Amino acid sequence: MHYRIETDTMGEVKVPADKYWGAQTERSRNNFKIGSIASMPLEIIKGFAYLKKAAAYANHDLGVLPIEKRDAIAMVCDEILADKLNDQFPLVIWQTGSGTQSNMNVNEVIANRAQVLAGFKIGEGEPVLKANDDVNKSQSSNDTYPTGMHIAAYKAVVEITIPGVEQLRDTLSQKSAEFMNVVKIGRTHLMDATPLTLGQELSGYVAQLNYGIKAVKNTLPHLSEIALGGTAVGTGLNTPEGYDVLVAKYIAEFTGHPFITAENKFEALAAHDAIVETHGALKQLAVSLNKIANDIRMLASGPRSGIGEILIPENEPGSSIMPGKVNPTQCEALTMVAAQVMGNDVAITIGGTQGHYELNVFKPLMAANFLQSARLLGDACVSFDEHCAQGIEPNYDRIKELVANSLMLVTALNTKIGYYKAAEIAQTAHKNNSTLKETAIALGYVTAEEFNQWVKPEEMVGKLK
Amino acid sequence: MHYRIETDTMGEVKVPADKYWGAQTERSRNNFKIGSIASMPLEIIKGFAYLKKAAAYANHDLGVLPIEKRDAIAMVCDEILADKLNDQFPLVIWQTGSGTQSNMNVNEVIANRAQVLAGFKIGEGEPVLKANDDVNKSQSSNDTYPTGMHIAAYKAVVEITIPGVEQLRDTLSQKSAEFMNVVKIGRTHLMDATPLTLGQELSGYVAQLNYGIKAVKNTLPHLSEIALGGTAVGTGLNTPEGYDVLVAKYIAEFTGHPFITAENKFEALAAHDAIVETHGALKQLAVSLNKIANDIRMLASGPRSGIGEILIPENEPGSSIMPGKVNPTQCEALTMVAAQVMGNDVAITIGGTQGHYELNVFKPLMAANFLQSARLLGDACVSFDEHCAQGIEPNYDRIKELVANSLMLVTALNTKIGYYKAAEIAQTAHKNNSTLKETAIALGYVTAEEFNQWVKPEEMVGKLK
Amino acid sequence: MHYRIETDTMGEVKVPADKYWGAQTERSRNNFKIGSIASMPLEIIKGFAYLKKAAAYANHDLGVLPIEKRDAIAMVCDEILADKLNDQFPLVIWQTGSGTQSNMNVNEVIANRAQVLAGFKIGEGEPVLKANDDVNKSQSSNDTYPTGMHIAAYKAVVEITIPGVEQLRDTLSQKSAEFMNVVKIGRTHLMDATPLTLGQELSGYVAQLNYGIKAVKNTLPHLSEIALGGTAVGTGLNTPEGYDVLVAKYIAEFTGHPFITAENKFEALAAHDAIVETHGALKQLAVSLNKIANDIRMLASGPRSGIGEILIPENEPGSSIMPGKVNPTQCEALTMVAAQVMGNDVAITIGGTQGHYELNVFKPLMAANFLQSARLLGDACVSFDEHCAQGIEPNYDRIKELVANSLMLVTALNTKIGYYKAAEIAQTAHKNNSTLKETAIALGYVTAEEFNQWVKPEEMVGKLK
Amino acid sequence: MHYRIETDTMGEVKVPADKYWGAQTERSRNNFKIGSIASMPLEIIKGFAYLKKAAAYANHDLGVLPIEKRDAIAMVCDEILADKLNDQFPLVIWQTGSGTQSNMNVNEVIANRAQVLAGFKIGEGEPVLKANDDVNKSQSSNDTYPTGMHIAAYKAVVEITIPGVEQLRDTLSQKSAEFMNVVKIGRTHLMDATPLTLGQELSGYVAQLNYGIKAVKNTLPHLSEIALGGTAVGTGLNTPEGYDVLVAKYIAEFTGHPFITAENKFEALAAHDAIVETHGALKQLAVSLNKIANDIRMLASGPRSGIGEILIPENEPGSSIMPGKVNPTQCEALTMVAAQVMGNDVAITIGGTQGHYELNVFKPLMAANFLQSARLLGDACVSFDEHCAQGIEPNYDRIKELVANSLMLVTALNTKIGYYKAAEIAQTAHKNNSTLKETAIALGYVTAEEFNQWVKPEEMVGKLK
Repeated sequence: MHYRIETDTMGEVKVPADKYWGAQTERSRNNFKIGSIASMPLEIIKGFAYLKKAAAYANHDLGVLPIEKRDAIAMVCDEILADKLNDQFPLVIWQTGSGTQSNMNVNEVIANRAQVLAGFKIGEGEPVLKANDDVNKSQSSNDTYPTGMHIAAYKAVVEITIPGVEQLRDTLSQKSAEFMNVVKIGRTHLMDATPLTLGQELSGYVAQLNYGIKAVKNTLPHLSEIALGGTAVGTGLNTPEGYDVLVAKYIAEFTGHPFITAENKFEALAAHDAIVETHGALKQLAVSLNKIANDIRMLASGPRSGIGEILIPENEPGSSIMPGKVNPTQCEALTMVAAQVMGNDVAITIGGTQGHYELNVFKPLMAANFLQSARLLGDACVSFDEHCAQGIEPNYDRIKELVANSLMLVTALNTKIGYYKAAEIAQTAHKNNSTLKETAIALGYVTAEEFNQWVKPEEMVGKLK
Repeated sequence: MHYRIETDTMGEVKVPADKYWGAQTERSRNNFKIGSIASMPLEIIKGFAYLKKAAAYANHDLGVLPIEKRDAIAMVCDEILADKLNDQFPLVIWQTGSGTQSNMNVNEVIANRAQVLAGFKIGEGEPVLKANDDVNKSQSSNDTYPTGMHIAAYKAVVEITIPGVEQLRDTLSQKSAEFMNVVKIGRTHLMDATPLTLGQELSGYVAQLNYGIKAVKNTLPHLSEIALGGTAVGTGLNTPEGYDVLVAKYIAEFTGHPFITAENKFEALAAHDAIVETHGALKQLAVSLNKIANDIRMLASGPRSGIGEILIPENEPGSSIMPGKVNPTQCEALTMVAAQVMGNDVAITIGGTQGHYELNVFKPLMAANFLQSARLLGDACVSFDEHCAQGIEPNYDRIKELVANSLMLVTALNTKIGYYKAAEIAQTAHKNNSTLKETAIALGYVTAEEFNQWVKPEEMVGKLK
Repeated sequence: MHYRIETDTMGEVKVPADKYWGAQTERSRNNFKIGSIASMPLEIIKGFAYLKKAAAYANHDLGVLPIEKRDAIAMVCDEILADKLNDQFPLVIWQTGSGTQSNMNVNEVIANRAQVLAGFKIGEGEPVLKANDDVNKSQSSNDTYPTGMHIAAYKAVVEITIPGVEQLRDTLSQKSAEFMNVVKIGRTHLMDATPLTLGQELSGYVAQLNYGIKAVKNTLPHLSEIALGGTAVGTGLNTPEGYDVLVAKYIAEFTGHPFITAENKFEALAAHDAIVETHGALKQLAVSLNKIANDIRMLASGPRSGIGEILIPENEPGSSIMPGKVNPTQCEALTMVAAQVMGNDVAITIGGTQGHYELNVFKPLMAANFLQSARLLGDACVSFDEHCAQGIEPNYDRIKELVANSLMLVTALNTKIGYYKAAEIAQTAHKNNSTLKETAIALGYVTAEEFNQWVKPEEMVGKLK
Repeated sequence: MHYRIETDTMGEVKVPADKYWGAQTERSRNNFKIGSIASMPLEIIKGFAYLKKAAAYANHDLGVLPIEKRDAIAMVCDEILADKLNDQFPLVIWQTGSGTQSNMNVNEVIANRAQVLAGFKIGEGEPVLKANDDVNKSQSSNDTYPTGMHIAAYKAVVEITIPGVEQLRDTLSQKSAEFMNVVKIGRTHLMDATPLTLGQELSGYVAQLNYGIKAVKNTLPHLSEIALGGTAVGTGLNTPEGYDVLVAKYIAEFTGHPFITAENKFEALAAHDAIVETHGALKQLAVSLNKIANDIRMLASGPRSGIGEILIPENEPGSSIMPGKVNPTQCEALTMVAAQVMGNDVAITIGGTQGHYELNVFKPLMAANFLQSARLLGDACVSFDEHCAQGIEPNYDRIKELVANSLMLVTALNTKIGYYKAAEIAQTAHKNNSTLKETAIALGYVTAEEFNQWVKPEEMVGKLK
């Protein structure tokens, strides 16, 4: 393997000759061999690309960076955003908790790549860009990393999570409308209860997802605030007047999302409550999705010894030993994702508590867990939608059979003969394994006509929307 | 001990003669000897009192309950709200997960107490009220318990949590303004960094709490929706037309809070995502408060071997063995509360995932954890405010000494001589244990005049608001 | 209300005249109005009573405390252990994180109560005992609180948790043996699978609980180590030679449990990994119990529209609106307890991470959560056992019907005709809603004789133990 | 791209022509596009390779698999173990919760690769091996996946986690011995306390890690039990007599670890409490490591405005804006890892609770989180050891200065003049900013000689081991 010598303020380091990164990246690579390589999410690197370009523009506008340097920086940032330099970011999540080393990784790659784009070899010729003085101008790791984190998080939520959840929500909503008149038995405590329609049951899921989407959206204003302009400790040292507002404007322009400068930069560096806040809403979605997926697999259980009220698509052979078995695998993937998001929420929560003074140094942990959750939720909803929800169909025969036998239809008699006599009917029918109607008449509480008139499942489900 | 015989649909039960509760309460008391007695929060019972009274009014207005029964119910509810029947609710959290038994406890107490108020002995005379048919009219445990839970939760958040946090926020805000010009060393990674003012540092805490309050408030619309009117499975079986909207109106009137009927009753019974959602925001507050309290105890550490930049009130002797020791005890209580809230969040999250079909049966667990968090946060903020935050004072001498010695003032030179030379100055001064100024001049990078002009801590803190 | 004046090193405090506590207790009572009063668990106070008595004996044996003082201390400790002074400990969990104030509460009550037992009024006469110099001799809050915590935790686990779990385990074990030959359908992914017996199914639960009990017992050696003798920071300052070993011996004698002195006192004060460790095992039990209770309620679901393979006791009316409804309430209580324990585990975990230097100041939080978990698990297992597990009975008719119809019996043909043909049979039978046998013969893969010989559910369940 | 047609019991599927996997793998690949590709840990695949080979050997020994098939299977398994087929396992964690699809992935790759090794093209010639009938013989996904999971988990813990922790423990132990006589100030509540030695302080960390290692080892017997032989539901259907014990023996032989057959196969399929149990112990290690790393960064804080009692290696430039800054980056990586492990514990806990009937379908989630934790802990300990712990040195000057000034040395006077006078001395000295000695003499409580004789920090640290 070939190496070249790179230098930083601590001295010389040997770096793979074919890589754009420099001394500080290499130090980190050697000092943090923890977990799989290059685990720092690429979304974060791209967040950096957006902000480095925006900073270059703002610096130029404010007179502290010449246009040639601005354009050199922007050109490499565009390459990063176009996935052309993906193999230049080898660092791991488990590095310094400020993400300084990934910030320097980006600075070094931009500087060295610009040198090459200018026709030089790395390390040769007059430097086009200095990593710390030019690429990092008006910046600190302490405000860039959280900015990159917010950009990546916001984009993931808005571009992946919400559309995924909405796609599933729309399917469930359509199914709910379609099955709004399919009267079925209700179940509470897993036990037979009064009837409702399948459409009503599904409408509860739709409501859950609507609340969840709203909860996520409620958090976006906080997440749209970015730390950039705070530099080292939040005071904005070494930034030109007006820089923070301007750089946010450029980031908003480049990303197409409404980022604004954080009102309080001290909070934006030392706390990552915005990440905690939005992920709290993602966790709520996980809770909802777990309920929905679990219900669906219970409703679809069988084919002969389960509940069996709905049919879901048969996607794969379900067993390597039991021939012909088919399983609710999309429900399983979705509930596993839900469990992961709930675990991630604790990791993020713990990370969020541990800011010290002017800086929280659990940034990469928080970013990585957040991005995993956001992507998994979005992807899993799409997968669940396409391979399960869209194919949900009622098992009409089974539904009818179960609702007809239900003892809880007796509830309709409460307002006619009182709770206590109604209970006696249900308990007697249960004991004698007889029907409600037979029992009710035998006990002398109602006539056959009254029973027929009062106990109609289809009239026990309320108003249908 | 004296007993009387009470009866329910399962038969006879012996009940303590001096208690108003009936057969179902007694069954629960005997069947669930888990943890300390009467652990079901009284706030929930009061939530029931509000809703039973409201239901009575709505039932009367809609023609299904005579005015005498309405008033009999309302009279006992008012007694419950006035803390006159607190010893009549002996049940525990760890009962049926629908809270049915606490609903019946309230129904039974209202019916029997009304009998006594009407001049009878319990169990004697024509029943003034029947527990299931009158007190519980147009209701089910499945919609009453979540309604009581939302009433209790909403009230706790709005009456205890938010005011407590705001009180602390206001103090910190005032202290921030007061100390806005006190220049001190900043710290990132726990290491010396560029300066900021004590007021700026505190402003970050204020911002955190403001975001937290806003996050909590964002969740209140969902929490203000109540399940009442859904009855057994969400269909509203056995309720008169218009009941759900009307009963919510009465609850809003009686409580003084803007409760409305839930748009989707199926969601309101089968999922408790509103509890998950609001508690997620409480957890965010816990995260913020942990950061704040931890910072304050580190800043106040010493008196001689710590950071010692601020002074906090000396409230109690701090050690049974070390004479004269004083500790940051309010910080400790607050961070313990934060840890509890984070644990509660997981319990609530797990409970929230486990609804089955038409009902979530983790209601008492979710309610109890929520109410503990809401109260602890509010109380702890008030305690912290009164016994710690209000007494924060800068230790001016220490602050001055530390900022004067800081090597990180060198950062001001970045824009003058570049990052790399500035680093050389800092590293050399560190190695030689000399001052920045001496070293900068010795290295020949700046003159004394330049140093004095460029390196001024008070000009490194940005604009002060 | 009457008061007397008490004094500590900070000055005078007004204390309720009828209470034994002194100045430091009263300061804490006033400074920490957080949550419900007197929330510090009484088990901890009793842990203190054991250790104060043991310390008095050890101090006397080692020549630093006269016998009269030893006996005065011991006499009050015995009163505390006999529940005679329960109203003398008004402090809350949310106080100083070292529990110093509860240590002083105990010291003060012992000193003042001894004064009264000696025939004086509180504050009058020559002090029989000084709270700090005599009652607290050779002690610090920093070693007493964790010792009291370990005593309380160990006792709760050994006296409540383990016996409760074992009681349930024994019942399940007996039921497993009883139903070992009841062949039923198995279910994987909630879908029909190959058969097993009900006894085998229950044997899995027994195994889970056995592993859980073993896991808890594995942690007891660490929990049996006590901090006493470490005093302020672990060095044992102000303790006589041999004190730590001797005082542990006395604690073991007084409690009847094998407590020993901690090998490393620094760990015992600054970390509470023993609490984390044992609670980790309690959490494992919670996981197991959740599985068991959830399975049982699913197996018992119905009565007509669920799985219905087992019958469980009908303990209470299950609905305030649905007459005759009965629910698996013990399962609900147990799964709520499980969720609470899982939440508590996170609170304890967070508390455990946050020791600083020589002391962890999340002690009361950790103790309170631990004790709640230990008690809830033990109580809930007993409740579940008595009101549910003991009454489990197979629903033979339902079991037979389901196993007879199962398509997964086809698996027995794998080794005869291969997986692929067997799959074809199952899929065809499913599609045509026909029986396996008909289909197998129709497809020409087996004869009727072969089918009868090869497909016998009772021979598909393996060896029965 | 080129494709070939593969067939399974559901029909035909197009598979990339250059891949060994078959129809079921391809279905899963298409149906579960969730998160990053090929996220199923390779350790699990290798666990499968061990067990498939072992199953082939056992099947052959027991007469149900010919030797040529055994050897064909073994040969491909060896290739998998030698990392030669790493690109043949494209599936994700978020698939069916039984891991069936990864089991089939392995079956298919083995069958098709064997065909190629036998000189055929995939799909051509008489099949050397059938995926379901031969490679999967005497197996089900339901017992293979948990077996693969246990193999991978056990190996990771024993080969990565424990050695990593032990390496760090050994360094800390050596440092503890080296600095056993360096007397320094102690700190409790972050406040100055009585002295101890740096070696004593470090010994607490060593004790924590020793307890943690022991806790992990306590769990290994449960983890060493494997499910193989239980097949579909735990009954061992379609396995030859003696197979379960024999296959475990082969796995033990091939892996070099003491695996044994699970005593109860129902537990081994339906619950993964062994994973919960061992991960609980990993979480305990995370708690300990968090304390240790946090202490070390606080002790090393500065260089001029922190605690500064120890020096740690300067590994990388610490800031992109503050020249010369160096940070405790290894502490940050380690505490981030700790937070991740704590989050993973919740994901695993939730997964563990959700087994239904005969199967837990959160297997891949639990496996993936477990393996991440095990690896991160081991790697991070090694990294922390090499780049931080080994370089810890006392800052002797600072340590001396701080201990000399400490007011808490007054504690040595407790046994001479009593706690109350000692407190007066400390408080007065604090108020007057004077020394203890001056104050003690001025107050007339001791003479200078007595003070010198009684207050010796080096005699306040107890016995040094």
